[in-house]
Amino acid sequence: MESVDRERAGLIARGWRWPWGLIEKFRDKMVEAARKAKKLGQEDPRRIIHSLKVGLAITLVSLIYYFNPAYGDFGVSTMWAVLTVVVVFEFSVGATLGRGLNRGLATLLAGALAVGAHYLAHLPGRPAQPIILGIFVFLVAAALSFLRFFPKLKARYDYALLIFILTFSLVSVTGYRDEEVLELAQHRLSTVLIGCATAMLVSIGICPVWAGYDLHKLVAGNVEKLGNFLEGFSEEYVRVLDDGESKDNKTFLLGYKSILTSKNTEDSLANFARWEPGHGRFRFRHPWKQYQKIGSLAGQCAYRIEALSSYPHSHIQVPTEIQSKIQAACTNMSTESGKALKELASAIKSMTKPCSVDPHIVNSKIAAESLKSLLETHFCEDVDLLELMPTAVVGSLLVEVITYVEEIAESVHELSSLAHFKDGKPEPEPEPEPEPEPKPTLEQPQQLQQTIQKFSGMDGPHHIITINGLLSIKASGTVVNVTSTDVTKGSKTKSNERQMRHVFSF
Amino acid sequence: MESVDRERAGLIARGWRWPWGLIEKFRDKMVEAARKAKKLGQEDPRRIIHSLKVGLAITLVSLIYYFNPAYGDFGVSTMWAVLTVVVVFEFSVGATLGRGLNRGLATLLAGALAVGAHYLAHLPGRPAQPIILGIFVFLVAAALSFLRFFPKLKARYDYALLIFILTFSLVSVTGYRDEEVLELAQHRLSTVLIGCATAMLVSIGICPVWAGYDLHKLVAGNVEKLGNFLEGFSEEYVRVLDDGESKDNKTFLLGYKSILTSKNTEDSLANFARWEPGHGRFRFRHPWKQYQKIGSLAGQCAYRIEALSSYPHSHIQVPTEIQSKIQAACTNMSTESGKALKELASAIKSMTKPCSVDPHIVNSKIAAESLKSLLETHFCEDVDLLELMPTAVVGSLLVEVITYVEEIAESVHELSSLAHFKDGKPEPEPEPEPEPEPKPTLEQPQQLQQTIQKFSGMDGPHHIITINGLLSIKASGTVVNVTSTDVTKGSKTKSNERQMRHVFSF
Repeated sequence: MESVDRERAGLIARGWRWPWGLIEKFRDKMVEAARKAKKLGQEDPRRIIHSLKVGLAITLVSLIYYFNPAYGDFGVSTMWAVLTVVVVFEFSVGATLGRGLNRGLATLLAGALAVGAHYLAHLPGRPAQPIILGIFVFLVAAALSFLRFFPKLKARYDYALLIFILTFSLVSVTGYRDEEVLELAQHRLSTVLIGCATAMLVSIGICPVWAGYDLHKLVAGNVEKLGNFLEGFSEEYVRVLDDGESKDNKTFLLGYKSILTSKNTEDSLANFARWEPGHGRFRFRHPWKQYQKIGSLAGQCAYRIEALSSYPHSHIQVPTEIQSKIQAACTNMSTESGKALKELASAIKSMTKPCSVDPHIVNSKIAAESLKSLLETHFCEDVDLLELMPTAVVGSLLVEVITYVEEIAESVHELSSLAHFKDGKPEPEPEPEPEPEPKPTLEQPQQLQQTIQKFSGMDGPHHIITINGLLSIKASGTVVNVTSTDVTKGSKTKSNERQMRHVFSF
Repeated sequence: MESVDRERAGLIARGWRWPWGLIEKFRDKMVEAARKAKKLGQEDPRRIIHSLKVGLAITLVSLIYYFNPAYGDFGVSTMWAVLTVVVVFEFSVGATLGRGLNRGLATLLAGALAVGAHYLAHLPGRPAQPIILGIFVFLVAAALSFLRFFPKLKARYDYALLIFILTFSLVSVTGYRDEEVLELAQHRLSTVLIGCATAMLVSIGICPVWAGYDLHKLVAGNVEKLGNFLEGFSEEYVRVLDDGESKDNKTFLLGYKSILTSKNTEDSLANFARWEPGHGRFRFRHPWKQYQKIGSLAGQCAYRIEALSSYPHSHIQVPTEIQSKIQAACTNMSTESGKALKELASAIKSMTKPCSVDPHIVNSKIAAESLKSLLETHFCEDVDLLELMPTAVVGSLLVEVITYVEEIAESVHELSSLAHFKDGKPEPEPEPEPEPEPKPTLEQPQQLQQTIQKFSGMDGPHHIITINGLLSIKASGTVVNVTSTDVTKGSKTKSNERQMRHVFSF
């Protein structure tokens, strides 16, 4: 008897427990989703605003039509207007404008063409009509679908082509009488235009999200990430050599990774930005292409850094005298190029001409030169190649990085002149370094010569010849051109860069 | 008099020339466009077929409705059907199915919800109705617009969310009486379903384009490109050393570049592939994720190769004895890893288990080991470090590449077991090499020992101990594990790999 009771009690309990389990599971899922939503909102509050804007735009256009149903013959027009708002309203102003203009234009052209097709199909009379219409629709749809494969068209007019196909088939196929067709085309156009207008007004009117500004921020951020890595890398490097261990949080060693995959984002943002009117400090024809150029250079640099990033821990040992010299040169290259990149990033961000960058680049090159002379002059010594390798590889990769840093600097200079950046206050000298060697600039050939001597640690003769603004240091048979990155002779600088790179490509 | 005549003649001539110029310009543009179109068609003939399919689908559905206008009340339904076909029909079957299912499901749910909202709004009576409806529409639109920011939802259900917003606003806002609303919702659903069905049938029925197959081909192709680069690189390398010059067409040095940016394509193809039914030799639940994994590893490897690609011409000089030894080891590493990758690629393509890969990987590792011992044992010699650097850097980067090659091999092994690849005929030995050193496999420890001795060029003792399937060679204080890449102990292999990498990360 008791046992039966207990059993029943157990059954009832289980019967109670079962739905509770489900409810709890559901609740957990909800909580999880809420947490994610909060995170998304905190990452970029504009997302929340965007959602509200979409709601507002759709409500607006629906209510407009709701209050004069005379407009919408059986709600058809209403549908087109609402539909237009829903599909046209994108996150950024550029995307919205692009889609809106695409849609409006395509509807206009396709509508006109379709009306023409409709008339043509009616000429021969009833039996032939559907066949002719069918052929028209087939030809237009097939041709435009193929056009959508053209990369240039796809990038900017894909949506227009889609809408063209849509409108043409819709208008030309409806079994209406001609005057009705005209009316339909007209209605469709007007409602589409109203829809586009609403979407655009809300998108621009209420906290607009400018694709151009996002591109600007993204590219500057990428350049800065590279800079952070290089600075952090050199610190890490020193730390490894001193304590024989590295700090745990290597966020700076990972920050650059996003650059490896940000190309597509940059391209689409640039496409949207072209649709946008002037906003803030960006004119209508802001050189967005230049941002793409800088972005791709940053990507190239990031690939090198990806290869570099596996080396900071590759030699936990007491460095020999020559090794520590080499490592000093490496830390120097890395720090200086990192500084240069960060200067460039802040120049882009503040839209001022980068003025204090060149000294850093010159310094990084001098460090590279010193590395070269070190390697040149220390053979026949008791050096263990295997132990020397990591340092050498790091040095060699850093030399590659430096060439890209200078290319980035050049294109930022170009950008600053194309986009009429305002002049920043020039800093004649970069701030002093912990590293032993002085920071010579082009104004001080003697000091530079001393540096080279000090580094190359040899007493051979150094002839310093200054030809048309290039300071070329003849040291132990190989010529290295240390040039001032001047916008006007960008190409020349580049060629010198290439030369240096080949002299240096160890 | 004559002059006037001449002048008039000139005017007339110019008057004639002007339109001709325009026409010619137009004709040139047309010719150019035609040329591009031909190229696009030749690159992938499926594009032409796709365009024809779109035309066919739209014509079909329009004619269906054209012939029973009773169906379409004033062409509204016609519109929905045509619209659905136009927006649902994508290039690949997966994309089409995905959009179709998204659209159908969203329409169904949103329609039902909207009818409910419509009833609710009617309860309080006319004045309050628009306000309530407005609030409903606003809330739904805002909430779902925000949901579209969730990465997972965006990847697969973005379109469904859009259509849900669309349908809900359309149905709930139309100023219809209730029975009309029901009719509308019903109509909309049926027409959308007919549209989706047409699109899907044409997409699958007539030369279907499977996203899954494209992903399969893309990933295999990427792995092959890496292999081509590595093989070509070693040839180029030898050529540079022999003739002091390189051949002009370095297509193999550029083929891999597409890999650097193919991540997004892979991801979207994988997303589409998940919608696709079983086709050809791909089951419904084919492990598409594994393809993504292999793809990203290939990308990682490509970054290293990008860094490597700037080195083949960096040392056009007569190599010293040690240099030529090092270079022999490098060419070996490159050739062997290249062979391994090409084997893997062909294994993926033919969907057979990769069986003749491991020897190549073992060989490449032995070459790496030989390089290490060379560098270890040749100090206190007359070596110019600067001249030695490029070779050393190439070697070090190649060692990194090898680790990725092995990871790729592992994940291909995983794929072959996940996707039940059929067994290929095993090749016990790789074909003989031009390089000096023999190709030992795990069956021949003695030979391997000789190899190591021959390379490391030292007479220290070598103890060979074989423990649980790992052949570990004790040579000059550092342990290197040469392991057989066995799927069953993939993790162990990896850990050994890591160890080897650290021993080796010079």
